Amino acid sequence: MFTSLLAATATAGVPATPGEVVAAAPAAAWRDIPVADLIEMTLSDGRVVTLQLAPALAPAHVANIRRLAAARWWDGLAIVRVQENYVVQWGDPEEPGRAPKPLPPGMQATSERDYDRPLAGLRLTPLATRDAYAARVGFADGWPVASDGRRAWLPHCYAYLGVGRNLSPDAGSGAELYVVNGTPPRALDRNIAVVGRVIGGMEHLSVLPRGTGPLGFYARPEMRVPIVSIVPGSGRRWQQFDTASPTFARYAHLRMNRRDSFFIRPAGGADLCNVPVPVRPAP
Amino acid sequence: MFTSLLAATATAGVPATPGEVVAAAPAAAWRDIPVADLIEMTLSDGRVVTLQLAPALAPAHVANIRRLAAARWWDGLAIVRVQENYVVQWGDPEEPGRAPKPLPPGMQATSERDYDRPLAGLRLTPLATRDAYAARVGFADGWPVASDGRRAWLPHCYAYLGVGRNLSPDAGSGAELYVVNGTPPRALDRNIAVVGRVIGGMEHLSVLPRGTGPLGFYARPEMRVPIVSIVPGSGRRWQQFDTASPTFARYAHLRMNRRDSFFIRPAGGADLCNVPVPVRPAP
Repeated sequence: MFTSLLAATATAGVPATPGEVVAAAPAAAWRDIPVADLIEMTLSDGRVVTLQLAPALAPAHVANIRRLAAARWWDGLAIVRVQENYVVQWGDPEEPGRAPKPLPPGMQATSERDYDRPLAGLRLTPLATRDAYAARVGFADGWPVASDGRRAWLPHCYAYLGVGRNLSPDAGSGAELYVVNGTPPRALDRNIAVVGRVIGGMEHLSVLPRGTGPLGFYARPEMRVPIVSIVPGSGRRWQQFDTASPTFARYAHLRMNRRDSFFIRPAGGADLCNVPVPVRPAP
Repeated sequence: MFTSLLAATATAGVPATPGEVVAAAPAAAWRDIPVADLIEMTLSDGRVVTLQLAPALAPAHVANIRRLAAARWWDGLAIVRVQENYVVQWGDPEEPGRAPKPLPPGMQATSERDYDRPLAGLRLTPLATRDAYAARVGFADGWPVASDGRRAWLPHCYAYLGVGRNLSPDAGSGAELYVVNGTPPRALDRNIAVVGRVIGGMEHLSVLPRGTGPLGFYARPEMRVPIVSIVPGSGRRWQQFDTASPTFARYAHLRMNRRDSFFIRPAGGADLCNVPVPVRPAP
């Protein structure tokens, strides 16, 4: 694969920027994302947000989210909270005097043990950088991963998907979800379950009006953003970079050492969340 | 100050969260922001964005920006670019066949030397954490600062203000400005001038529609967001935490070691951009 990449780029010049590496990547550098890992949120006016779930890193929560999507549990519910530089959150709005919407049958119990998993069993490609929150960081199976050497977890990066919860020991069922819309709130890592990411249509969530109530909740019900539907992935197929490939290694190296003509001082490192895994609709 | 803080909190309980530390901070923990360091952007419908400039860290660019604001140079120009998870940018829109708007007299020349400054002369309060982009990080005079031990610079945090430029050696005059609207693009540090931050009304910038042209430029002129005015600070007065105070040290410690009832595993560190300096309208 590496040889063919070099051959392919020899005539056009070796890709010198992360974007050029992605554009010149051979087909073998891309992996199909399983359709079972996708869910699609539709807002009004046909705005579609595509989310990818991470079953290897959050199996119990992902099982629940798949079940909720299959049951069309969120259809007709709403985005209830948009906190500036923090999160966009949706679920069953709390209404005085109304009982919460019943969850579908077969939901799995969750606990604090679902916030991380054993590092063993993951094929970790390390990222040679410093991280404020973890002893080791890298990538496994298309996902950024942080680790203390024993356990591993998904980081709270921009556009990443987490499971809302109340105070511990509640670990959240997966019915209440949020997406990061600002500075990666990595202090939440291992304190709450990260279970996936937005791979399409993030701009439909990031532009939503900020809520004016406490924690960014919409102060009045009519401010909420209705959810037309959230369904299991069915239509468009997606691909992501193989994070164990030499193409990804080259991409990550260039993200840490920018040599685009714009840059005059390469950083020599990068935050884990600043090496986004390339994702695209399948060609 | 430390004694009085302890005395003040002994009865009410020691503040245990960053927010409680801010709420309980004594008046001595706050510093007035010089009015000369403020500029105010007004968009249509009375939306106001307040920006604070950092003259100690970016003197040449800040002098130019003050001059441009005093000349009302941006009035009637527009926000021309909103790139998802990157920047919001404004200035004089490029139009085929139209000459750029002349700059006011007295603008300072700028160069790559303006992207950082000597560490010596700054009173740095270190932040005990790991950083992917700098050997040392901390705070000076109300600002986050990164350093290699010799030079010091402002980081590209969320809501921070930078000076657009073309390819080097152009270092940007200050007439073209951008604000970070996503993951801190710290790879830009020392490659472009960071000169300030949004301290009020960031939500008016973060919700702007993303541009559909290359790099998030608005594809058609009518999509641009008109700037009613950008003027020197005049009205509301603002304050920021004294980053050399024990109150700030306590706040930063709690940002790195969250003990709110929600948290079960304190991180023991924090990204520099995840310890935002508290700012408020003067009481």
